[in-house]
Amino acid sequence: MFLLGIDIGGTNIKIGFIEKETGVLVAFDQLPFQKELGYRKICERIRDKAFELAQEKGIDIDEVSSVGAAVPGSIDPEEKTVLNAYNLDFKNVPLKEELSTLFTGKSVSIVNDASAAAFAEFKAGALKGHSTVVFLTIGTGLGGGLVLGGKLFNGGRGYGVEPGHIIIDCYGEKCTCGNVGCAETLCSASWLARQGRSALISYPDSLIAQRSGNDPERVSAKLVIDAVRSGDTAAIRIFNEFLENLSSAIASMVNLLDPEIIAIGGGISAAGDILYIPLELKVNDKAFFKDEYKVVPAVMGNDAGMIGAALLAAEKAGDR
Amino acid sequence: MFLLGIDIGGTNIKIGFIEKETGVLVAFDQLPFQKELGYRKICERIRDKAFELAQEKGIDIDEVSSVGAAVPGSIDPEEKTVLNAYNLDFKNVPLKEELSTLFTGKSVSIVNDASAAAFAEFKAGALKGHSTVVFLTIGTGLGGGLVLGGKLFNGGRGYGVEPGHIIIDCYGEKCTCGNVGCAETLCSASWLARQGRSALISYPDSLIAQRSGNDPERVSAKLVIDAVRSGDTAAIRIFNEFLENLSSAIASMVNLLDPEIIAIGGGISAAGDILYIPLELKVNDKAFFKDEYKVVPAVMGNDAGMIGAALLAAEKAGDR
Repeated sequence: MFLLGIDIGGTNIKIGFIEKETGVLVAFDQLPFQKELGYRKICERIRDKAFELAQEKGIDIDEVSSVGAAVPGSIDPEEKTVLNAYNLDFKNVPLKEELSTLFTGKSVSIVNDASAAAFAEFKAGALKGHSTVVFLTIGTGLGGGLVLGGKLFNGGRGYGVEPGHIIIDCYGEKCTCGNVGCAETLCSASWLARQGRSALISYPDSLIAQRSGNDPERVSAKLVIDAVRSGDTAAIRIFNEFLENLSSAIASMVNLLDPEIIAIGGGISAAGDILYIPLELKVNDKAFFKDEYKVVPAVMGNDAGMIGAALLAAEKAGDR
Repeated sequence: MFLLGIDIGGTNIKIGFIEKETGVLVAFDQLPFQKELGYRKICERIRDKAFELAQEKGIDIDEVSSVGAAVPGSIDPEEKTVLNAYNLDFKNVPLKEELSTLFTGKSVSIVNDASAAAFAEFKAGALKGHSTVVFLTIGTGLGGGLVLGGKLFNGGRGYGVEPGHIIIDCYGEKCTCGNVGCAETLCSASWLARQGRSALISYPDSLIAQRSGNDPERVSAKLVIDAVRSGDTAAIRIFNEFLENLSSAIASMVNLLDPEIIAIGGGISAAGDILYIPLELKVNDKAFFKDEYKVVPAVMGNDAGMIGAALLAAEKAGDR
């Protein structure tokens, strides 16, 4: 038997078949996400691509028991409707029903993409073998998911969890959500890039300034992190502040939930050891309970959402 | 059948019998906590007082099925040992074993006092009928407990939850825990008193200054709150900042956990409507999910720890 995982992103839609018994991804393809088509046509294309891929790889569609779709947005507590997925232009889209119609006879489930990724890491990745875990994905924004006592936790009322909007600097910078000092504002790749751009003025001799040719447009989180690796003072100062902010955000969650382990994925994970090693030290320094917490890299990469959605669909259908 | 609840505090030890079927407190007494006696003698006195109380009220000790004790401190994940209860001078005290010896044949359990209070409010108080809730108790410090999906959540590794040590102002004031900007530092009665004392200098004509006779020793959270009620500008300014801080702390937890309801007890609850009404507005203003969250007063008062410990002991024994 197989599971079908779908990850609908603002740029691409990933589609993969996973062997149920082993959890191994056996077939993969993607198609561009075209907002202008509208959700019905988009779902049809997903179905067509999935059938095409199955045929290509010799997978009998009747052998697919569950279909799971991840979306970058919020889902209603009944897990039927995408309430809002800004990057997809999905608002109150009855995605579960739509996919159920297209994939007749399969049990379909839909899930937030960060929660799906958390579940994938928990079932098959960096968080495997633990029971209460925090997963964060840090790129342009900061998202994540929680597994509490072996179960994906979708919020007490079912609206999801928003680790990016815990408040860590209540007299600090304004967040896009309208609030002040949210983790997402202070510990995202966007924050690194923003600070790098101010360094063009405050540190005109820095590597950040040199390598970007003083062009704010060319200052990215990656450029800042590369400058850290080259020993640039301005970049190191920025990155240390980033580590302070992120460790405060994680310590908040750690002090509230006492998880066994924290995994971090997303674009920021490319920073590698210079991120994870000092971060673990700082989190433990700020933790209330002094028994060591592990902070580790996520391992499932870009497939996490797709695979997590498939595994969760199977779990919800009770067939895995 | 009856349950015995014990709340060991730094000043008094509360002892109460609860009728199992109804959850009603049917007998109550207390005795002074005398640190110098050491935990063994203290436990003996608790036993003696409980037996005396039972006899007085005609309760047959054989009819008591479970014994629950709450302590202001941390408990090991196996729920046998008080790791550290600073106010009691208890360090690595095998409290469960000690009480089990003294109350032969009863199922004994020990629990952190704030978690016990959370459980009492959840089972029989302000949080009854809900499934995922946050309970905070605010006085000298800020403690609390979480019920997630109908179960008291004791932290992923079993060390407990510390809502007082989520970080809300990571570039702010130092906390007694060694960290910076913890909720406990910024939203406790101690913070109100501290700010009230600075008002003696910054607002020498304030009601805070007048009513305390300019004596810092006489400035308490209560005095500040009373001055708010009298319309004192300095006090109102302080109290508004308190509401900002506390609503940020609660919004953090709300955005991470999406609970159905938040209850607040402890000394601060005496502030009444001027606390709860603006707080609920501010929390909802800062919440990521815009479906309204309720912020309500705790209702079990000072008995919450004792009753919660008893109810939890019964639940753990599977006999309630």
